[in-house]
Amino acid sequence: MGGTAICAVPPIVFYNQRQMSLRFEIHRTENSMRRATLHLPHGSVETPVFMPVGTAASVKAVPQDILETLGDDGRGAEIILANTYHLYLRPGHELIRRAGGVHKFMSWNRPMLTDSGGFQVFSLAALRKITAEGVEFRSHLDGSKHFFSPEHSIDVQIALGADIIMAFDECTEHPATYERTRDSMALTHAWAQRSLDHFHSHCQDVPWFNELGQRQNLYGIVQGGMYKDLRTESANRLLEMRAPNGEGFDGYAIGGLAVGEPREVTREIIAHTLELLPKDKPRYVMGVGYPDEIVEYAQMGVDQMDCVLPTRAARHALLFTSEGRLNIRGKKFSEDHGQADPECHCPVCRRYSRAYLRHLFHTGEPLAATLASVHNLSFYLDTMRKLRGERIAG
Amino acid sequence: MGGTAICAVPPIVFYNQRQMSLRFEIHRTENSMRRATLHLPHGSVETPVFMPVGTAASVKAVPQDILETLGDDGRGAEIILANTYHLYLRPGHELIRRAGGVHKFMSWNRPMLTDSGGFQVFSLAALRKITAEGVEFRSHLDGSKHFFSPEHSIDVQIALGADIIMAFDECTEHPATYERTRDSMALTHAWAQRSLDHFHSHCQDVPWFNELGQRQNLYGIVQGGMYKDLRTESANRLLEMRAPNGEGFDGYAIGGLAVGEPREVTREIIAHTLELLPKDKPRYVMGVGYPDEIVEYAQMGVDQMDCVLPTRAARHALLFTSEGRLNIRGKKFSEDHGQADPECHCPVCRRYSRAYLRHLFHTGEPLAATLASVHNLSFYLDTMRKLRGERIAG
Ligand SMILES: [Zn+2]
Ligand SMILES: [Zn+2]
Repeated sequence: MGGTAICAVPPIVFYNQRQMSLRFEIHRTENSMRRATLHLPHGSVETPVFMPVGTAASVKAVPQDILETLGDDGRGAEIILANTYHLYLRPGHELIRRAGGVHKFMSWNRPMLTDSGGFQVFSLAALRKITAEGVEFRSHLDGSKHFFSPEHSIDVQIALGADIIMAFDECTEHPATYERTRDSMALTHAWAQRSLDHFHSHCQDVPWFNELGQRQNLYGIVQGGMYKDLRTESANRLLEMRAPNGEGFDGYAIGGLAVGEPREVTREIIAHTLELLPKDKPRYVMGVGYPDEIVEYAQMGVDQMDCVLPTRAARHALLFTSEGRLNIRGKKFSEDHGQADPECHCPVCRRYSRAYLRHLFHTGEPLAATLASVHNLSFYLDTMRKLRGERIAG
Repeated sequence: MGGTAICAVPPIVFYNQRQMSLRFEIHRTENSMRRATLHLPHGSVETPVFMPVGTAASVKAVPQDILETLGDDGRGAEIILANTYHLYLRPGHELIRRAGGVHKFMSWNRPMLTDSGGFQVFSLAALRKITAEGVEFRSHLDGSKHFFSPEHSIDVQIALGADIIMAFDECTEHPATYERTRDSMALTHAWAQRSLDHFHSHCQDVPWFNELGQRQNLYGIVQGGMYKDLRTESANRLLEMRAPNGEGFDGYAIGGLAVGEPREVTREIIAHTLELLPKDKPRYVMGVGYPDEIVEYAQMGVDQMDCVLPTRAARHALLFTSEGRLNIRGKKFSEDHGQADPECHCPVCRRYSRAYLRHLFHTGEPLAATLASVHNLSFYLDTMRKLRGERIAG
């Protein structure tokens, strides 16, 4: 078992603490919103940031070179997400390790984040058997049997080599009783400690460790369901958690939200938990949300968010615009030669009309999903960019 | 009925003959291959050229800005095709006319060609009833009843506004007896004359007529099946055909090939027919072919070709490369980190590995079709570009 602090004292090169982990440079805090730059091994990310989801190492229907130029400033997505569960099943994390990591595999040289695989194991996989050791499950693809422990999740995430990786947690179902939530949280805490320990004894195994002279960054996940006292306990427990080398988590996520609870509850739990988290580390709310939600949470002090919504909605012809949501399949758009969003300067709005987008969806052309996704992602990125500018600049 | 030569003497502006129709500038002929530039209302096209097919005003899965930069010279497709039958049904030619034509509708400002709709009426539509007047058919989409005559096909193509449009013909099935082929050809000739007459009395109706100061260009289609004497008769008949204003066809297509006949027969009929066509006008073989076929036909003196093969094959994971055809789904590519085609400089080969392409197909990611189509189209365009350079330059 790895109790030695390998990554703090690497065998070949000397790294100081700064080079080793992420640097979170806060430029200014206005009300509760933090305007910061997150420095990661593959580059810098302006926060608050929305992170597009690239489930199986592809942001669905969007080529990487377009991802790099999204938004009305053409700067593109600065960080994207990939899902550990999906990549573990196909093409397999060892294959990706041999390819040099997921950045090289998918040709994306900017920062990335992987989840722990826990969420998909609990939502997609079948025949789960949960013990203190980990989770046994069957693949939703072929029924094959697999086992994820905190150590295995970390190993897989090290092989994938994202800049930010996540502790393995149990995603508590909703609704859940107080007792059930407390027990689930206790399991999450035990797994968080094991994730932290295992990460710090194996972090030099990341494919680009020597090339970039940095390690990955591990975030802990606060659980506790809709119970504030459990959220307090969870945050405190994670904050004091240390690997044998003395290192804690590099950032903190608020998990177990957007699982069907009313939005006021989401907001309350986020507000409550943010108060407990350290001001000098990034805070990440997983799996949110609609454009007005990501604005609201960013204004409350959340630095990172991700959601499949902009791309999934796009594939169903739902566009997010400055005029609200449009179902672009609507008959009323059949001769609307204006752009999808009159205030958007994305590559799609600059070039194509609503009538053409409607036609592509109407005829089932594959280009429909691509163009709608490019606009929706641009809208999300622009929303955050404006928020960063509006609240800070001048 | 329009027997007056409206387009030769436009009511508002004076156009000389040169400005009115296409200009086919032959730079050099080597053996039988012609190296030329085809000057059209929306721009110039270097020939021999392969034209990607954009069935419903979209080259499947490929955004227009990528189409504009395909190929290893980054010059992109100089001309694309759209299908009249599909656009007539959805979104409707009158809608596209009101949008300013298909160029504006789909945001493609380079040359385009539309077919007459005949091929799809005869291959896709149901319950066809063919008379001397035209074809009654039911939509393959909703069973609705429609009627296409030569005049209607030309009206639809004028509304769409492609740079090159095609006479309405009957596509003779294969195999067909001599008598059946002769009768079908006679119908095609009657329809060709009516197409020519109708076009020249309505060509000022194209949406961009005043804007560009030019008219569309109408090609006649040589039929006659696999019978050389009928091909001779058909070519001669089309060559002498004139509208009341004295205008003939602006170019000639060889139709009714690639319908299941052996390739030697295709080659023989092309060779035979090319001998009969005028040297100073473009020659177009419809619906071909594999990369080696388009090279062969170009070398024989064909100037334009089109085929769905590069994009359709791409969607089925079949890549055309300098090393031959690859089914990129193959297990053997799972850890092949080389580019799809080692000799290709297309945007896909420059950026992505075979392993990643295989992964995208294996996981059903929509990006798979886009990337494979971009490579295949680039390969086709490069094949023609090299042919134009190899045989001519220096
Ligand atoms: Zn837009
Ligand atoms: Zn290529």
